[in-house]
Amino acid sequence: MAGSSFGTIFRITTWGESHGKAIGVVIDGCPAGLPLCEEDIDRYTARRRPNGGPMSTARRETDKVQILSGVFEGKTTGTPISLMIMNEDQRSRDYSSIADSYRPGHADYGYDVKYGFRDYRGGGRSSARETAARVAAGAVAQKLLQLFGVECRAHLSAIGSVPSTDPAAMEELVQKCRSEMNSIGSTVICAVKGLPAGIGDPVFEKLDANLAKAIFSIGAVKGLDIGDGHLAATLLGSQNNDPFRIKDGKVVMETNHGGGILGGISTGSDILMTVYFKPTPSIALPQRSVNRFHEEIDMEIKGRHDPVIGARAAVVVESMVALTLVDAILLNQSARIDKVQI
Amino acid sequence: MAGSSFGTIFRITTWGESHGKAIGVVIDGCPAGLPLCEEDIDRYTARRRPNGGPMSTARRETDKVQILSGVFEGKTTGTPISLMIMNEDQRSRDYSSIADSYRPGHADYGYDVKYGFRDYRGGGRSSARETAARVAAGAVAQKLLQLFGVECRAHLSAIGSVPSTDPAAMEELVQKCRSEMNSIGSTVICAVKGLPAGIGDPVFEKLDANLAKAIFSIGAVKGLDIGDGHLAATLLGSQNNDPFRIKDGKVVMETNHGGGILGGISTGSDILMTVYFKPTPSIALPQRSVNRFHEEIDMEIKGRHDPVIGARAAVVVESMVALTLVDAILLNQSARIDKVQI
Amino acid sequence: MAGSSFGTIFRITTWGESHGKAIGVVIDGCPAGLPLCEEDIDRYTARRRPNGGPMSTARRETDKVQILSGVFEGKTTGTPISLMIMNEDQRSRDYSSIADSYRPGHADYGYDVKYGFRDYRGGGRSSARETAARVAAGAVAQKLLQLFGVECRAHLSAIGSVPSTDPAAMEELVQKCRSEMNSIGSTVICAVKGLPAGIGDPVFEKLDANLAKAIFSIGAVKGLDIGDGHLAATLLGSQNNDPFRIKDGKVVMETNHGGGILGGISTGSDILMTVYFKPTPSIALPQRSVNRFHEEIDMEIKGRHDPVIGARAAVVVESMVALTLVDAILLNQSARIDKVQI
Amino acid sequence: MAGSSFGTIFRITTWGESHGKAIGVVIDGCPAGLPLCEEDIDRYTARRRPNGGPMSTARRETDKVQILSGVFEGKTTGTPISLMIMNEDQRSRDYSSIADSYRPGHADYGYDVKYGFRDYRGGGRSSARETAARVAAGAVAQKLLQLFGVECRAHLSAIGSVPSTDPAAMEELVQKCRSEMNSIGSTVICAVKGLPAGIGDPVFEKLDANLAKAIFSIGAVKGLDIGDGHLAATLLGSQNNDPFRIKDGKVVMETNHGGGILGGISTGSDILMTVYFKPTPSIALPQRSVNRFHEEIDMEIKGRHDPVIGARAAVVVESMVALTLVDAILLNQSARIDKVQI
Repeated sequence: MAGSSFGTIFRITTWGESHGKAIGVVIDGCPAGLPLCEEDIDRYTARRRPNGGPMSTARRETDKVQILSGVFEGKTTGTPISLMIMNEDQRSRDYSSIADSYRPGHADYGYDVKYGFRDYRGGGRSSARETAARVAAGAVAQKLLQLFGVECRAHLSAIGSVPSTDPAAMEELVQKCRSEMNSIGSTVICAVKGLPAGIGDPVFEKLDANLAKAIFSIGAVKGLDIGDGHLAATLLGSQNNDPFRIKDGKVVMETNHGGGILGGISTGSDILMTVYFKPTPSIALPQRSVNRFHEEIDMEIKGRHDPVIGARAAVVVESMVALTLVDAILLNQSARIDKVQI
Repeated sequence: MAGSSFGTIFRITTWGESHGKAIGVVIDGCPAGLPLCEEDIDRYTARRRPNGGPMSTARRETDKVQILSGVFEGKTTGTPISLMIMNEDQRSRDYSSIADSYRPGHADYGYDVKYGFRDYRGGGRSSARETAARVAAGAVAQKLLQLFGVECRAHLSAIGSVPSTDPAAMEELVQKCRSEMNSIGSTVICAVKGLPAGIGDPVFEKLDANLAKAIFSIGAVKGLDIGDGHLAATLLGSQNNDPFRIKDGKVVMETNHGGGILGGISTGSDILMTVYFKPTPSIALPQRSVNRFHEEIDMEIKGRHDPVIGARAAVVVESMVALTLVDAILLNQSARIDKVQI
Repeated sequence: MAGSSFGTIFRITTWGESHGKAIGVVIDGCPAGLPLCEEDIDRYTARRRPNGGPMSTARRETDKVQILSGVFEGKTTGTPISLMIMNEDQRSRDYSSIADSYRPGHADYGYDVKYGFRDYRGGGRSSARETAARVAAGAVAQKLLQLFGVECRAHLSAIGSVPSTDPAAMEELVQKCRSEMNSIGSTVICAVKGLPAGIGDPVFEKLDANLAKAIFSIGAVKGLDIGDGHLAATLLGSQNNDPFRIKDGKVVMETNHGGGILGGISTGSDILMTVYFKPTPSIALPQRSVNRFHEEIDMEIKGRHDPVIGARAAVVVESMVALTLVDAILLNQSARIDKVQI
Repeated sequence: MAGSSFGTIFRITTWGESHGKAIGVVIDGCPAGLPLCEEDIDRYTARRRPNGGPMSTARRETDKVQILSGVFEGKTTGTPISLMIMNEDQRSRDYSSIADSYRPGHADYGYDVKYGFRDYRGGGRSSARETAARVAAGAVAQKLLQLFGVECRAHLSAIGSVPSTDPAAMEELVQKCRSEMNSIGSTVICAVKGLPAGIGDPVFEKLDANLAKAIFSIGAVKGLDIGDGHLAATLLGSQNNDPFRIKDGKVVMETNHGGGILGGISTGSDILMTVYFKPTPSIALPQRSVNRFHEEIDMEIKGRHDPVIGARAAVVVESMVALTLVDAILLNQSARIDKVQI
């Protein structure tokens, strides 16, 4: 079934495999009149790109985005915006070690059962490379949010149990994992400021439900907290409820245990999310596994892999949140009869 | 926008307010030929119903479900199944204390901003009573899962920090909350056994993404773990990867840190989820808040409220998971050209 | 699959069989603040109801609509509006003549192949009675259109080859059909006035494409013209193009061959549609057919049937058009960045 | 809103403007395992391409399709198939005559009202060039239909009032239109053979409703008949009903007034549709119109334009029908509980 689309009004469709000719995304439903150029998008994809630093793969990806449609005289036209990134680093190589084997922690086995076979080159469609297309689309969503006065930012908050407030210990941990041919989990925090109250829909299209879907659609995410999240399960009601107050004539909340959403609808407080990533499944250490002939094997995964996912994934989280918020804002245009424009 | 529907092939639409005439759900897309009667549904709605025990409200709800359409000669016909539950306990009462005020931890304020006004009687559409319709639909999904050999079960695993393995301490904690006019958070675990590998779609329709949306669409959910969840963020790759093995000629996994899903597709291992509920926001203790005239007030919430949500919500989690799985299984029918039936 | 829903933002889901307990519709996505009462709906369902006149069945249907949810203090709340009509005339009768046989011109055979069996009582889900739910929902859409200044009206324009401008000949033709145990085709014209230019979306969600789907979803429709329709296929470009002019400072068109839509987007001219209905398939004359045991049979269809469909179906056409227009207007709220409200 | 997607399970999204860098389509939800190469697609796009014959424009379009993703080792993988066609003939030219003016019969005015401005180069997104992407996607759908044993074919059946059985008169009429700087309407017939009974969904997702949407989404379509179509409105029931018979042990129909669909579900008879196209709106004759400054003007449309649409549009009709049928067949996989595969 068609699983590569996200959103209702502002709707994206991504395509492309890790080692195919190109990857891309079609954005349909972007309002007309938004100034947009390729540099606007490059700013975001650059944040996802491997930077040669200690936390990232050595793979070269320039991720230069081409706008193929939907922009005329520097502005969006309301019609589909097609963005494409050529795959420059398609070195021919020997995939025999993984073509028939199922890498632990990867989607290989599920794909084979589901589809009968798979594009095994670099993970094919399940590669993290697919997220470059999400970030390209997210850049457009971010431009819209800025126009609406909404700021959406995500950052790496911990590697393993080491918080990002201790960068030296964090880097040491990453180097240790790398030298031990291992990897480590990580945590990303995303905060949204300036979103007005009243955004999101009741029941199944709650704002937090759609944010959860957006975030769990990122590979390697295993946990999500909204506001106090899993800690709220241990609190008393009197501790967890956020009192309403009036400040400068506006309704505000004194605390923000709820993370800015109540009953699926934004309250005007900051939206706060904590996203938990598992360790990179591709590790160079020998692992026990099986192949598609149902034989038990030992395998070692070669190649260039980040030892930690959260560093480069923060901008992916940010993009998915931005895409979700833009769609929710556009859907909200028809909530009240006195706001409908004819 | 239309937020009250869930699912693509097996699609439900719920309707109704806490203190309106009735609530209900329309199930569209249920395959024809499933034996179904009202008793099948009552078994599930009974688990959600207040039972007069220490953890539940004193409200009387018989929740007797009527099948109004879609079943003929004891079997589903493939056309919409309309289920209705009359609201028996619509005592006329005085809502003046909440009609104009915003209860902390509730959706009142967001609804007023979004829609301009709200049905304030008992929480209206944002009441937990809406979940009775989900459970009624979930009962139909559960019947399908049983036919498919899939078992889906959820249970309360902790109240506050007390695990369900210590029922005496758990009950003591609830009684304490009740006597102190307070409430407490809770944790629910859901496990799915027997789901074959290959279910779920890549990218945005990942099985875990849809489960996350399903679960965060339940009011009061603030956190979700799949498999090891937030703890995976502190593990090494060598700890977190689940080795594949062969057992009785089939591919299995030695451990289950991943919770049965890799790359958004089921692996055949049990699906494991931990759901974190905030404390019931309705507490009798005095709270600071505001009203719709933007005045600061003190308010006390009268009425019958559960001190803990997870006890009655476990069957709601189970229902949302069952609905998600049935839809994913039906969507999977067209994954491979050699499986398409013409 | 879930085929009983229509619309994206303003979305309806109908349910119920001809001879079940009730039929109904859930409207999700209606903007909050619309004044609505049961009498508003009864005005429309009354037009669909058999009136005992020469063109209609003798079946008694009071079609009294109950509003079960979504309206509070006389106004829509933005949450689902559940409408129900009890089936009062469920006389127990002998269906043995049609339970196993396939009535020519009816959906019986297709249902049996698709679903394995069917609710054969009075046509079950494929009965024209289902359209009463559409008309109830259409009444709400019409109230919205009136607020927007849009007038949507349909009327019977011909029975067989006799135009409605000759009512005496029309009635004579119907009486002749009835006395000969036969039926006759009919034509309905629908005109929309006051719809502003710019409504409808390019490519696949063209306004005319969605109107066509809406109208062909009505049973017995076999043809549709937009504007000059099938006659446009014989015209020259110089005859068919509608010249733009300026009138009172506004862009208008001198003629209206196009029927108010160009490139899928409204032009501000009246929208004109001609809908062609086949004759009622239920006729009392003996017909050759087969049964589900694959035996050839002769069958006579008993019971009360309209000899012509268009008379009562005009309000169904009107309702489907109104539902389509409301959804298109609401979807158009986010077309331009300078119109988005935050 | 997102109007450039079509289909539920087998879902396409087209993008691109007439004079942009490229046009393309993403096909999501194609079952895995279908053999596919670029030549398979070129066979269909060649039929839409201007061929230099008397009925077509002189514009050079090679329409060479590139497969950018979704195919591995010669077979579809189940993931999105991205197809791209570069726009080779992007000669820089002077658009000043149409940039500010509204061509009669075109979407120019509606786009300007809807979006505030438009890509005026060659019609931008509303150009017939967009249909090349539909035909590329349709080629994939046709490959699937062939596997399913279904044949779907469309052909030009008339130009103006001259039937295709008189090619000499047809060509003469076209030459006359061309020499008089005029254009002429046309008719296309589409027939589907081999589709089994039981395909299509009741109520709003009727097979004929979705076919109607598919066909009216093609620019310049103004009328559609299913089976006898508009002529059915003048028939008696005894003339129009198709008697069921048994032939070689199978249920068949003696006649086919209904065009192969009853109650929205296929009957196993051939599906027959007649599609009516208006004359090409771009004519070289002087026309009265207005510009965006609301001034009345006279305009002459320069450039290369087909004098008749139906000749090249037949394959577009065929493609849209094929896309609709494939989606309906895939959706039908979950109609019956005894057919669901687990």
